[in-house]
Amino acid sequence: MESKNNIKNFDKLLENYAKLAIEIGVNVQKDEDVLIKAPVEFPLFVQKLVKASYERGANEVFVEYKDENLLKLKYLNEKQNILNNVHDFEIEKLRYLYKERKVNVINVVGEDPDIFKDIDAKIIAQSNAKKSEKIKEFRKYTMNDIISWLVISIPTEKWAKKVFPNSKESVNDLWKEIFKTSRVDESYEKTKENWNKHIENLNKRADFLNSKKFKRLIYTSENGTNLHVNLPKNHIWLSAGSKNEKGNYFIPNIPTEEVFSAPDKFGVNGKLVATKPLVYNGVVINDFYFEFKDGKVINSFAKENNDTLNEMLNMDENSKYLGEIALVPYNSPISLSNILFFNTLFDENASCHFALGEAYPTCVENGANLNSEELEKIGLNTSVIHEDFMVGNKDLNITAINENNEEITIFKDGIWAF
Amino acid sequence: MESKNNIKNFDKLLENYAKLAIEIGVNVQKDEDVLIKAPVEFPLFVQKLVKASYERGANEVFVEYKDENLLKLKYLNEKQNILNNVHDFEIEKLRYLYKERKVNVINVVGEDPDIFKDIDAKIIAQSNAKKSEKIKEFRKYTMNDIISWLVISIPTEKWAKKVFPNSKESVNDLWKEIFKTSRVDESYEKTKENWNKHIENLNKRADFLNSKKFKRLIYTSENGTNLHVNLPKNHIWLSAGSKNEKGNYFIPNIPTEEVFSAPDKFGVNGKLVATKPLVYNGVVINDFYFEFKDGKVINSFAKENNDTLNEMLNMDENSKYLGEIALVPYNSPISLSNILFFNTLFDENASCHFALGEAYPTCVENGANLNSEELEKIGLNTSVIHEDFMVGNKDLNITAINENNEEITIFKDGIWAF
Repeated sequence: MESKNNIKNFDKLLENYAKLAIEIGVNVQKDEDVLIKAPVEFPLFVQKLVKASYERGANEVFVEYKDENLLKLKYLNEKQNILNNVHDFEIEKLRYLYKERKVNVINVVGEDPDIFKDIDAKIIAQSNAKKSEKIKEFRKYTMNDIISWLVISIPTEKWAKKVFPNSKESVNDLWKEIFKTSRVDESYEKTKENWNKHIENLNKRADFLNSKKFKRLIYTSENGTNLHVNLPKNHIWLSAGSKNEKGNYFIPNIPTEEVFSAPDKFGVNGKLVATKPLVYNGVVINDFYFEFKDGKVINSFAKENNDTLNEMLNMDENSKYLGEIALVPYNSPISLSNILFFNTLFDENASCHFALGEAYPTCVENGANLNSEELEKIGLNTSVIHEDFMVGNKDLNITAINENNEEITIFKDGIWAF
Repeated sequence: MESKNNIKNFDKLLENYAKLAIEIGVNVQKDEDVLIKAPVEFPLFVQKLVKASYERGANEVFVEYKDENLLKLKYLNEKQNILNNVHDFEIEKLRYLYKERKVNVINVVGEDPDIFKDIDAKIIAQSNAKKSEKIKEFRKYTMNDIISWLVISIPTEKWAKKVFPNSKESVNDLWKEIFKTSRVDESYEKTKENWNKHIENLNKRADFLNSKKFKRLIYTSENGTNLHVNLPKNHIWLSAGSKNEKGNYFIPNIPTEEVFSAPDKFGVNGKLVATKPLVYNGVVINDFYFEFKDGKVINSFAKENNDTLNEMLNMDENSKYLGEIALVPYNSPISLSNILFFNTLFDENASCHFALGEAYPTCVENGANLNSEELEKIGLNTSVIHEDFMVGNKDLNITAINENNEEITIFKDGIWAF
């Protein structure tokens, strides 16, 4: 993967992609630390991320190379009590980096969507649930935007092959899509300009929605989706970026196209039909729907990998409630590419979506200062999972109801109506 | 590197090489843990090591991917106090793995011999000295063979290019040499047989030397080497393998050709002229010699990278004393290949050598139970370094003196004389 590459000016694009991640993504400040978790497949990108971090004056950079083949071997061979365990030295590392150093966290993704398809879904689910429980105190650092965090991708061979099964240059093809959807230009100045303009556009949408203080959204589509979603009082629509505890603006997803908030966890009723597959724990869940009553999934089915879907829904007592509502027009650049990415980072930015599980507390006023009980009271869900699934399509209509019970169409035929 | 490979049955050879490391190298036992530190360049070998570990019933396998390009960026950009530091979570990990779990440690090497040639030698030396000091309590676990440990190699692109600068297939060329010198066959049964025979041969040499209880060796060569080395009372010549605390036999180096012991640190006098370059901290030190008086280096010079040599000699108060004496005939398979590997694991097994710094306490009777002061008293050196350097050549003669002052030639014209 590292050797040949026929993309014109690849090295420059890669460098700008890395600078985008460090300078605009997590927005590293002088004397801060950086933690990079990245697939082992492409060290060159990691080296460029590290270099860009030092250029911003980073104090110390930590890198954890991930090898999903080793994780698969773990699932196949280690006892469940070992799989469920988090070592003291791992917790101490999290404590030091998250609590003490308020580290910038970059998670580079590029998973093989089918990596765990032959593994018993229960084994993985139990391991994830137990481990999440043991490190849950650190989850708030990213969920509440205390620290800067970023999810960004590189094409690995197996992921690229899944996206472009008939191409002989699937990795290159995927690089091209990543650069394009991430608005990376050969000129770094132009890349920055692209992002400033993009952020401004997304913020305008969010500002409009915030000004309206809607109390409910109604989703309808010919595929069977028919859902009423209440929004919590004082909810906030967010987009693109957020400010960390120190007040520094960062962008947690590259690419990003969404305007999102949190639903009232008890105020969701009706049916939601997914329009794209969902990759969960290295398994592709496909052709599925949920039925909600007072916020809870009371019925669901997936034609493909229904058992994995069930494991996800049963991860904890709140994993059957929604935690995110996000609006993305059907004509977003990623959507227009007409490519199914089998990767949430891309597919969620091509489609209106929801997430099951934890809500971002920053989606209500003063939410970052509330504990789980207080969040629950105002309708914000807390859970060990946060799994996006896609519901957008070209005939999705969304009607919003304001405090005076006036109806305003905000999505018409899959795209923004205002 | 991972993609194309024209070596016949490469995958089978690689698998047998990994099994050799796990089953004969560290000799993993049921329910033990394994720690693998390996270059990021070739995850496939790591995956095979991990798989072989589970096949032996390993409890948990830990992998740390190493990226020397990131270490170089660290040296270039981080402040010295950061470079000198070892974090609490790193020490806790060592404590858990070494002390509590008595882990099997596999260090896969494949360094670019020139990686740090542009870095100030002082920066690296200070970082290594300070870090070694902070984790010195864990050094004894390998130096005293409390746990099983192994150094083994894979060809990385830059190392292979240094060894075979004119080859277009340098990585493949180096794989071939590694498989050959490591006695790896396409049949695993044959590989095991090769090693059993090899170990037996080396043990015979060691047994002979042990039976003679020599008190002194005298080295002479036309290149200027003329050295008297006293051996401590009750010294032991070791070869190939050793037993760990639990009594399990392991082989700490693959390949291995040496029969070695510890010199009396105060009983070394004369001149030693190196016959191969030494790669230290990513810098090639070449064309060098040492003059000893009562064990201590009192004069030295390297035509190439003398400053790095000086940093090595000044790492601590004992780094100017010898800690290992090793005999390897000039006709060893690695030597016969006539290849300069720029890697101690190979070059030391092609040549008689010594090491500056720490002695292996197991080289004297009951040594593993003695503390540094007690070891010092019987002439065994302790230091933060242990750096092998090569002195063998085709006219090296070694005469041994026994307790009755009889002279016995043990090396004649570079090879065993008995």
